[in-house]
Amino acid sequence: MARKTGSHSEITGPRIRAAALQLFARHGFAAVSMRQIAGEVGVQAGALYLYTPDKQTLLFDLLEAHMVELLDSWSKSEAGGDPVQNLEAFCRCHIQFNLSHSDSLFISYMELRNLDPDNFAKIEAYRKRYEDALEAILKAGTEAKLFSLPDTKLATMAVIAMLNGVNTWFREGGRLSQDRVERIYWNMVRRAVGAKGFS
Amino acid sequence: MARKTGSHSEITGPRIRAAALQLFARHGFAAVSMRQIAGEVGVQAGALYLYTPDKQTLLFDLLEAHMVELLDSWSKSEAGGDPVQNLEAFCRCHIQFNLSHSDSLFISYMELRNLDPDNFAKIEAYRKRYEDALEAILKAGTEAKLFSLPDTKLATMAVIAMLNGVNTWFREGGRLSQDRVERIYWNMVRRAVGAKGFS
Repeated sequence: MARKTGSHSEITGPRIRAAALQLFARHGFAAVSMRQIAGEVGVQAGALYLYTPDKQTLLFDLLEAHMVELLDSWSKSEAGGDPVQNLEAFCRCHIQFNLSHSDSLFISYMELRNLDPDNFAKIEAYRKRYEDALEAILKAGTEAKLFSLPDTKLATMAVIAMLNGVNTWFREGGRLSQDRVERIYWNMVRRAVGAKGFS
Repeated sequence: MARKTGSHSEITGPRIRAAALQLFARHGFAAVSMRQIAGEVGVQAGALYLYTPDKQTLLFDLLEAHMVELLDSWSKSEAGGDPVQNLEAFCRCHIQFNLSHSDSLFISYMELRNLDPDNFAKIEAYRKRYEDALEAILKAGTEAKLFSLPDTKLATMAVIAMLNGVNTWFREGGRLSQDRVERIYWNMVRRAVGAKGFS
């Protein structure tokens, strides 16, 4: 079977993004030059500008892709079950996504301050959509008296922060399997939201 | 009453640290030069080197001071009560400390990757001491059957991550008072650890 040969931009684009992601995660956005990214890809610095107008756009594209993929991942995982099932699905999906996207999660938090105001506002809007998805589950559960929460907004922020923390210490092949970690965190989350029968 | 006149180093040291903290928090360690820090303080760049050998040492000093103050703050807040009281004291102390040290908390997470390996190891040792203080409370509560936790290490990481998250959204004068936020988070934490009577 003939292997389709991609155009220059099809091949180089993903490699530029991958190189930028890795360099930004390792050294920080401010410390990385377009020249370094080009060097990592093995092209001249000028070739980068065929793909992206500047380093700011490259950063925004990476952060936007992270949020689009995260939202997409959740829309595919959504169980469509009751609020307890949906919350479990959300927690597991979030941990799974983060652990398989550790570099982009890392720069999504570390480099927010380096976004231009317009780009920052766009990323914040994606984050808001994602937080709203979790808060909708928490609200539905609270209304159905399955959860007991005085403030679903704070619970949303608390749950996301707790789950994001997994990336700071989890190592593949460590003391606990990923599935065990997901289960332990899910247990803490369902108790934190006051889910009935799980105290 | 005569006002004690400090030596050059007594006056300039804290100002250099304050300027470095603010600049690192705003622009990132890599993007800030010694010259910029000197400019912010209003001294020549050369004068900075009377106080600190290099930017790396300045960063380490700031991150070490953050951890020393955090540990000190907890040793002063320690209630010496039962595990439930101690856990509440820990949660409130952590939130209070973080909200009153937002810049140093921020750089403590953002700039870890910019520490030299030796300095990184020293900061990690401080963090370990702090995590151990929380884990000791969780272990004591689990042994006394006041908490129900399958893994006190994971619960330690989960609680700290959850509480750190407050700094990402809390604003003085916002919808909720700090005391209300502390109470809501404490309620989520005590439920998350399975504290009896709080399900």
